Amino acid sequence: MNGEKVKVAIVGSTGYGGAELIRFLWGHPAVEIVSVISASSAGAPISEGFPHLSDIIVQPLDAVEPEEIAAKAEVVFTATPSGVSGKLVPELLKAGLKVIDLSGDFRLKDGDVYETWYKHEAPDSKLLEQAVYGLSEVYGDEVPGAGLISNPGCYPTATLLGLIPALSAGWIDPGSIIIDAKSGVSGSGRGTSLTTHYAEINENLKAYKVNKHQHIPEIEQILSQVAGEPVTVTFTTHLAPMTRGIMSTIYAGLKGAYTEDDLIQLYRQFYKGRSFVRIRENGIWPATKEVFGSNYCDIGFAADRRTGRLTIISVIDNMVKGAAGQAIQNLNLMMCWDETAGLNYVPVYP
Amino acid sequence: MNGEKVKVAIVGSTGYGGAELIRFLWGHPAVEIVSVISASSAGAPISEGFPHLSDIIVQPLDAVEPEEIAAKAEVVFTATPSGVSGKLVPELLKAGLKVIDLSGDFRLKDGDVYETWYKHEAPDSKLLEQAVYGLSEVYGDEVPGAGLISNPGCYPTATLLGLIPALSAGWIDPGSIIIDAKSGVSGSGRGTSLTTHYAEINENLKAYKVNKHQHIPEIEQILSQVAGEPVTVTFTTHLAPMTRGIMSTIYAGLKGAYTEDDLIQLYRQFYKGRSFVRIRENGIWPATKEVFGSNYCDIGFAADRRTGRLTIISVIDNMVKGAAGQAIQNLNLMMCWDETAGLNYVPVYP
Amino acid sequence: MNGEKVKVAIVGSTGYGGAELIRFLWGHPAVEIVSVISASSAGAPISEGFPHLSDIIVQPLDAVEPEEIAAKAEVVFTATPSGVSGKLVPELLKAGLKVIDLSGDFRLKDGDVYETWYKHEAPDSKLLEQAVYGLSEVYGDEVPGAGLISNPGCYPTATLLGLIPALSAGWIDPGSIIIDAKSGVSGSGRGTSLTTHYAEINENLKAYKVNKHQHIPEIEQILSQVAGEPVTVTFTTHLAPMTRGIMSTIYAGLKGAYTEDDLIQLYRQFYKGRSFVRIRENGIWPATKEVFGSNYCDIGFAADRRTGRLTIISVIDNMVKGAAGQAIQNLNLMMCWDETAGLNYVPVYP
Amino acid sequence: MNGEKVKVAIVGSTGYGGAELIRFLWGHPAVEIVSVISASSAGAPISEGFPHLSDIIVQPLDAVEPEEIAAKAEVVFTATPSGVSGKLVPELLKAGLKVIDLSGDFRLKDGDVYETWYKHEAPDSKLLEQAVYGLSEVYGDEVPGAGLISNPGCYPTATLLGLIPALSAGWIDPGSIIIDAKSGVSGSGRGTSLTTHYAEINENLKAYKVNKHQHIPEIEQILSQVAGEPVTVTFTTHLAPMTRGIMSTIYAGLKGAYTEDDLIQLYRQFYKGRSFVRIRENGIWPATKEVFGSNYCDIGFAADRRTGRLTIISVIDNMVKGAAGQAIQNLNLMMCWDETAGLNYVPVYP
Repeated sequence: MNGEKVKVAIVGSTGYGGAELIRFLWGHPAVEIVSVISASSAGAPISEGFPHLSDIIVQPLDAVEPEEIAAKAEVVFTATPSGVSGKLVPELLKAGLKVIDLSGDFRLKDGDVYETWYKHEAPDSKLLEQAVYGLSEVYGDEVPGAGLISNPGCYPTATLLGLIPALSAGWIDPGSIIIDAKSGVSGSGRGTSLTTHYAEINENLKAYKVNKHQHIPEIEQILSQVAGEPVTVTFTTHLAPMTRGIMSTIYAGLKGAYTEDDLIQLYRQFYKGRSFVRIRENGIWPATKEVFGSNYCDIGFAADRRTGRLTIISVIDNMVKGAAGQAIQNLNLMMCWDETAGLNYVPVYP
Repeated sequence: MNGEKVKVAIVGSTGYGGAELIRFLWGHPAVEIVSVISASSAGAPISEGFPHLSDIIVQPLDAVEPEEIAAKAEVVFTATPSGVSGKLVPELLKAGLKVIDLSGDFRLKDGDVYETWYKHEAPDSKLLEQAVYGLSEVYGDEVPGAGLISNPGCYPTATLLGLIPALSAGWIDPGSIIIDAKSGVSGSGRGTSLTTHYAEINENLKAYKVNKHQHIPEIEQILSQVAGEPVTVTFTTHLAPMTRGIMSTIYAGLKGAYTEDDLIQLYRQFYKGRSFVRIRENGIWPATKEVFGSNYCDIGFAADRRTGRLTIISVIDNMVKGAAGQAIQNLNLMMCWDETAGLNYVPVYP
Repeated sequence: MNGEKVKVAIVGSTGYGGAELIRFLWGHPAVEIVSVISASSAGAPISEGFPHLSDIIVQPLDAVEPEEIAAKAEVVFTATPSGVSGKLVPELLKAGLKVIDLSGDFRLKDGDVYETWYKHEAPDSKLLEQAVYGLSEVYGDEVPGAGLISNPGCYPTATLLGLIPALSAGWIDPGSIIIDAKSGVSGSGRGTSLTTHYAEINENLKAYKVNKHQHIPEIEQILSQVAGEPVTVTFTTHLAPMTRGIMSTIYAGLKGAYTEDDLIQLYRQFYKGRSFVRIRENGIWPATKEVFGSNYCDIGFAADRRTGRLTIISVIDNMVKGAAGQAIQNLNLMMCWDETAGLNYVPVYP
Repeated sequence: MNGEKVKVAIVGSTGYGGAELIRFLWGHPAVEIVSVISASSAGAPISEGFPHLSDIIVQPLDAVEPEEIAAKAEVVFTATPSGVSGKLVPELLKAGLKVIDLSGDFRLKDGDVYETWYKHEAPDSKLLEQAVYGLSEVYGDEVPGAGLISNPGCYPTATLLGLIPALSAGWIDPGSIIIDAKSGVSGSGRGTSLTTHYAEINENLKAYKVNKHQHIPEIEQILSQVAGEPVTVTFTTHLAPMTRGIMSTIYAGLKGAYTEDDLIQLYRQFYKGRSFVRIRENGIWPATKEVFGSNYCDIGFAADRRTGRLTIISVIDNMVKGAAGQAIQNLNLMMCWDETAGLNYVPVYP
């Protein structure tokens, strides 16, 4: 990590994902932010929309010009909405940039599936194929040579990290998986609508997009790959009255009399040497606040002998491990740095 | 409802359940609150601990004296902790009072099961047998003649109202039921502990008592009765950063190709003529805030053809339909009044 | 209150003010809601936008047609934005309706002052003159004969009820008044903007419109009238991370060695016989939650001998005493009913 | 900052102040945490009480043994309650440690004043005299040689940084100062009581200790020193429904026709070269969330020509600039490091 800093640019700097990338990249020891970019606010200071960045980021926002970005930066993060990334990323790649994309546009390998769930045209199928799915703890080995990293979705990150060790060990029945997921509001982005209005969200808990969330095929694609057979899941998303945090409460039928201790051992082995997955002690289940503001994914278990079912609780900060943090973790892997570079933050508690 | 008002007393007036009973009973057209009772604060004005009752309840708190209560009141609500009710209720019954008990002490018919889950001695088995389980919409017919009503738990109320019509119709597989339940903090009562500290709860979501909550046997007892066979459920409880509200997200395997419209029709038929269960339109799932402060239980459905599973979303205000409101609904049924008397409140929104 | 019910209509039913009017009027013993009206959603069921009203208000939303309203109703509540009321109310009056207006359009007597603070054209000056300022506890006597009631603003209600007794008694220096006011978010209405986005408001406290809020001239108009001399105030508004509630913390120089007990006596005398102002005991200051969902205004005092200053704490629920509740209180006064009719609600706690 | 790391110990590691010290010191480039200490939980892993520190701090908690601490560490932070620090700090100093104390025990120079406001015995008067008041931006020059730093209170930090430049310039009337302060709940510490119960705090705003808060003499001591005359302030503290953040809204009479631009210039000059005070643009007032999790103090102004009064809005994160962050800033100054070492955190937003 010595020598010159790697120059990075951030497209979508006026959204929550962009702001969170800035938070971590600004303090990253091997990175220099050379351009903060916004299609809608080019020319303005970023502190106008994000006063918390006053005196921290003083350069004005740049426009989205691939050639200009390439002239300044080596790597670009695209924290742009689905549909926008699909069109922008090919141009950025063509301009010679390495791209870490935080939208969902390059996560699904099958364009038809993409169009069914995302309801708009899929990006070019070759790019879909090339894109490396950057679930760092599982597919990190594929990252170093890649030109395009597709950063996993927030729900899939919490869910897959919670499921893959047990599924790949053959301990759970692939046909029995039910995921009850809960998210804070920041996952909806900074756009204004009645569904993000404070008075509608505060002191409220609601389900949304039941069985219809676009993260379902993303989860199923990876689980099917891991299980070696098609896996279909029941997946319910809920909005909780909080800003950050995702909890996936995952239910699956156990294929043997595995105990919590067995599971803890299995998972600790699976994630050995990785810094950001913490497997909790027997009888302890993680809470979202225990990872707030940090890149950790914390996992706990309950194996119920009465019903033969396993309950897995997996939590992340949706803005960090579920978005900006994992994207930087992928940058670290891409650059062959320690995966914790710039991400060594203790969770903010309370 | 004309003529003299029925005289009621409330034991446990300094807890949240007691305060909520006061809120509704104070405005009940056929009821007079003759005594507000507290073991710990007898003699003090209730507004000392509950300033929101200033100038509303001015009589001082009474001590817990069964004979004195019986001299003043006909019906007594016991909003006392589990373990306390078990000992107090027999004395109140002996003194000639009708009792509506909000603790869990008289809900389980089997004293052994009680002791396994509650970890202390069960009340007398005869009383357990006599107690009518006051799930108003299902067992309301048994209430009028009863001397002891055991008011259902908050989680069981939301869960059972959501499950019983489908289960009794034989549309779902009794062995497949998974309940992912979320509650606001008021369900923990007014006692102070780290688990109710604002800074620990705010911006936090946590699971607790996974597979171990004492409401599990209560739910299973009723479901087994409805199904006509032993039913075992997976049941996870979560604490959400809000004061009031319970959501049960219920998963079950469908035994046929039932659609959301079929379910809506089934449930509307089942709850026909009942005022406090609202079945939502197809594609709409209720949110906890939509019943805040009111006695409603709102229910919505999603039937997933991909997985053959049904998702039921059932919400209540844990303090109202899950406690004080249903207790008063039981009083109304006991007195053969309209079940809505004193409970005709529009939810407080936003 | 016997005989036929008074027929009322509500314009602006799809806003928070309208919803809150419905909450109280639906249960009002002497009122029938004959029309719920919305310019933007006429024809649709109100439960589409306000699911909490499912099965409660089933009639579809009507359009804003003054003649049709007059054919059905005697009294109309206008919960319309400033600027809209100014144009609509004259038509409603012309159609023969009595109007209780919740906007700010008819509160200021001087059209020029209105235009300075509201930044758009003032209504007709004759109407400004006719409109009775419906601060129920102070100007209630003028309400019965009036055709147009201008319902006070939320901040002015809390502030004026807290200041008028001391100011009219000559106990405080009119030139020394500083008001530090805090409000929940519902006061901003249901419109969507970044300033009501959950993720921006949660865990945040911010000042806004410092020295520029349009409630300043409303407060000064009444205080000047009470003091018999021009009164200018410093007034700061803050947004607090909560849905409901206003607290005005008011500072003023004391003109004598008055104690808290003196003030309590003065205020209790001033509000004698009124149901909705509660003066707290010495050493107790009211909190917003203690009036949540109710029509109460609670007031407490601290007289500081060290500085010779008085601190007055006055709290209301901005949606109730600061809007819908006081509007209905004015209806009650207009109809010569008990001022508590339909408003006898215990605060929702916790 | 090269060479060996400075060894530090933290007493009071199981409170919020201790946890926050750990958050920053763990990532501090020139510091090594050699001992985390707790009187109540010695021997246990800290993650038992603070699961967010799982896998981060693995050493067990040490007991409070001054000699043992001195054997390991050079500097000790005491995040102990008032009253405890007063007795412990002399022993730590005697053992040869440098002490940065976060309690209020060494902030007041006059032991009598201390006893009046803190209601228990004051520490030794010599120590009170020696202790340097570590308001970094104002008294930072006195820190390097000091053996005992008394870290300022949370309210005084926000208030004094907001007032000192204007007061020392003679622009405001020292007799006119009114401070309306609001704090999140974490300021009350981790102890459990009804006043920190989630259901009591959520959706609530309350005043407390009006005119009686122990931070009053601390503020007055410094303001009197700055003004060169005795200054008495009116000071009201409010609890806001949020975990972190303090806002001081400060009112004072202006002694001239100073504009917002004049004030901005004055303050920017005063804080020139300091990293953690940010003076906002004209017309912009800072919000608490804009400094969340960071060591910034942000300040904005409104000068009202109508009333001749100045309104200053000053915000900090009470746990950081109001406690742990400023304590580490004092360590940095003590060690003659850059004041930002280990504190270079972008605020967490949203």
